[in-house]
Amino acid sequence: MTTPWEYRYAQRTQRMASSAIRELLKLTALPNMISFAGGLPAPDVFPVTAFQEACQRVLQNAGAESLQYGPTEGYLPLRDMIARHTARYGIEITPQNILMTSGSQQALDLLGKIFINPGDRILVEAPTYLGALQAWNAYGAEYVSVPVDEYGMIPEALEEALRVGPKFMYVLPNFQNPSGVTLSLERRYKLVRLADEYGVPIVEDDPYGQLRYEGEHLPSIVVLDGQANNSHDGHYRGNIIYLSTFSKILAPGIRLAWVIAPPQVIDKLVQAKQGADLHTSSFNQMVTYEVARGGFLDQHIRTIRSVYGERRDIMLQALSEYFPPSVLWTHPEGGLFLWGTLPDWMNAETVFHEAIKRKVAFVPGQAFFPHGEVKNCFRLNFSNATPENIRLGISRLGELLYEMIELPEVAV
Amino acid sequence: MTTPWEYRYAQRTQRMASSAIRELLKLTALPNMISFAGGLPAPDVFPVTAFQEACQRVLQNAGAESLQYGPTEGYLPLRDMIARHTARYGIEITPQNILMTSGSQQALDLLGKIFINPGDRILVEAPTYLGALQAWNAYGAEYVSVPVDEYGMIPEALEEALRVGPKFMYVLPNFQNPSGVTLSLERRYKLVRLADEYGVPIVEDDPYGQLRYEGEHLPSIVVLDGQANNSHDGHYRGNIIYLSTFSKILAPGIRLAWVIAPPQVIDKLVQAKQGADLHTSSFNQMVTYEVARGGFLDQHIRTIRSVYGERRDIMLQALSEYFPPSVLWTHPEGGLFLWGTLPDWMNAETVFHEAIKRKVAFVPGQAFFPHGEVKNCFRLNFSNATPENIRLGISRLGELLYEMIELPEVAV
Repeated sequence: MTTPWEYRYAQRTQRMASSAIRELLKLTALPNMISFAGGLPAPDVFPVTAFQEACQRVLQNAGAESLQYGPTEGYLPLRDMIARHTARYGIEITPQNILMTSGSQQALDLLGKIFINPGDRILVEAPTYLGALQAWNAYGAEYVSVPVDEYGMIPEALEEALRVGPKFMYVLPNFQNPSGVTLSLERRYKLVRLADEYGVPIVEDDPYGQLRYEGEHLPSIVVLDGQANNSHDGHYRGNIIYLSTFSKILAPGIRLAWVIAPPQVIDKLVQAKQGADLHTSSFNQMVTYEVARGGFLDQHIRTIRSVYGERRDIMLQALSEYFPPSVLWTHPEGGLFLWGTLPDWMNAETVFHEAIKRKVAFVPGQAFFPHGEVKNCFRLNFSNATPENIRLGISRLGELLYEMIELPEVAV
Repeated sequence: MTTPWEYRYAQRTQRMASSAIRELLKLTALPNMISFAGGLPAPDVFPVTAFQEACQRVLQNAGAESLQYGPTEGYLPLRDMIARHTARYGIEITPQNILMTSGSQQALDLLGKIFINPGDRILVEAPTYLGALQAWNAYGAEYVSVPVDEYGMIPEALEEALRVGPKFMYVLPNFQNPSGVTLSLERRYKLVRLADEYGVPIVEDDPYGQLRYEGEHLPSIVVLDGQANNSHDGHYRGNIIYLSTFSKILAPGIRLAWVIAPPQVIDKLVQAKQGADLHTSSFNQMVTYEVARGGFLDQHIRTIRSVYGERRDIMLQALSEYFPPSVLWTHPEGGLFLWGTLPDWMNAETVFHEAIKRKVAFVPGQAFFPHGEVKNCFRLNFSNATPENIRLGISRLGELLYEMIELPEVAV
């Protein structure tokens, strides 16, 4: 049935995400599938009881407030808590620097809305977070991309890309989605220096920063920027817009994240958010505050770290047992993902379709490149499947890869 | 402090809502203010206990699912329930016609994203819902407006506006925000006929349709369109995109609304929503489903009707007691608002600033006109204040208006 609407789509819809990757992901939801595809937290670590208690407290003590319209900026006690929490990591901000959003995806959308004119070039890592490309394509963004190695963006390539004059940089320094790699401390310093030198500000996206399973915590870009240039130690200079979320440390189903930005930028984001969804659920913000406060969040993050750390280890172990030696993978120090590289001649999407038949799923990597230039990579999530299923799924995938690659060493 | 971001705003931010009206609304939140300004439901009718029970049931029986990522389209049992509920009003749809959104404001934003190119003309009522203008200004919409009288849009003016060739029409047929007026049945037929004749589809926004306090329910535009042109009675033809929400019949703090549209349009909206906020909170959707099902929603709507109906009556009574005869107001048959008109020479914003000093607030009407052409009107909300405060607030406002107008009859 054709309706009058089909002749009326805006031009930008042509640039909006093709449904190719969505169609692929639908296949991963078939029954009995062992899926390493989504970026899903493990349901068994959701703090269900804490949520039950928090819902009761909020509805009992502030039922009317929690069900009523709220301020676009977000629930003040929660923004206060985030400001205090952020100070622990060495950066002084106030609630006026914070906007609560409906997931980090909304933060990306609102940033696109207030900053991106059609044709503006945004500097991104290659590969980068697919959701940022989806959000910004709708505003007509173009991309200049910087390849990533095991220590994050390669500085020489970064400097070359900065010479193109991007409007801003988009960086995921910790356990990047999709590659799982972490920007080294040396490169972080270099990034801050280059940002200053070229006058290009940074959007730092940090959904996984607290989910580190080995090695030392590295300071955020926003913290290093505050310490740079002889400014007051830890003073927020406003060059970096910082994003984080409750999705990975509490639960994604509550859709709650935050942006840290200069107050003037927060004002613009608030205007944009008013038109976009008025405000984020008062109820969810108050319940999350109740769940998080009093030290529960810190304790819960320790639980998640131990569960996900174990799953990462199991996946790494299974990969070295079951995968052909011509397939490479990253060794993430935290987060939810690792990144595999097949021999050059292979196409990960072909492997995907074969893998689905054997009831194991992952995400082919091409969609994570703004220009789709790499076809032989793939992303594996290790947080969602159980340890048993991780081993089973990786063994199935390894068997398939051996068959498809048919390397001489198999025959030996 | 100036940051590199201030030089980087997108052009569209210049067209985004000025903060003038927001600054005004901040004043209405001062302590001891009797506010008729917001569009707030009465907190005393929020079904707090029902939410408590629903939260427990959802977390107990489906804790992991409710806290996990969910499909962009929305929670299927809820979309099913909405489809069944819609069928009662005479229009046959399936869940494939429904997208759950983070409040109706998001539906407006997503519609702007997929349909509006810069410079596109949208036909709106004058006055119209401010949030639609806010959402669509960001996409560069222009407006052609149709004046409203006590029976809704004036047909002659509507036909004239259709000749301009708008991309679509935006209509609030029931107890319109801000004017409180209802499009008459005769004009609804005429609207559907003109829409067909000029080939211009309609976005029907219906947040208040079930909150009628007098008179007979009138069929929605989407229903009349389904009955038109000898098509199968009640078949959804897809010419009308219909919006509604749980904000006014349950609670706005949960940010939950829906769009009814042809499946192809839903697909585009889903793509847009993926980039905008991924999906609406699984938890809120499941809790709302638990609250609404089993007949509770119908019963609750009867409670709201009786509370708001009484408040409307009290406000109408107080207006005729306390307001000068040169001030006019509408007689809404439902919804949350009525609309006042001051003598031509008066500016409602001047009155607003005086009223604030006397601790009573309303919204000056100018911002509801896409071209800001009318300055002597104002909107009063009657759902939020208690009956006592409605009388007290209207008497304060009446006293002020008598002073400002200084009509001869005062002196008599």
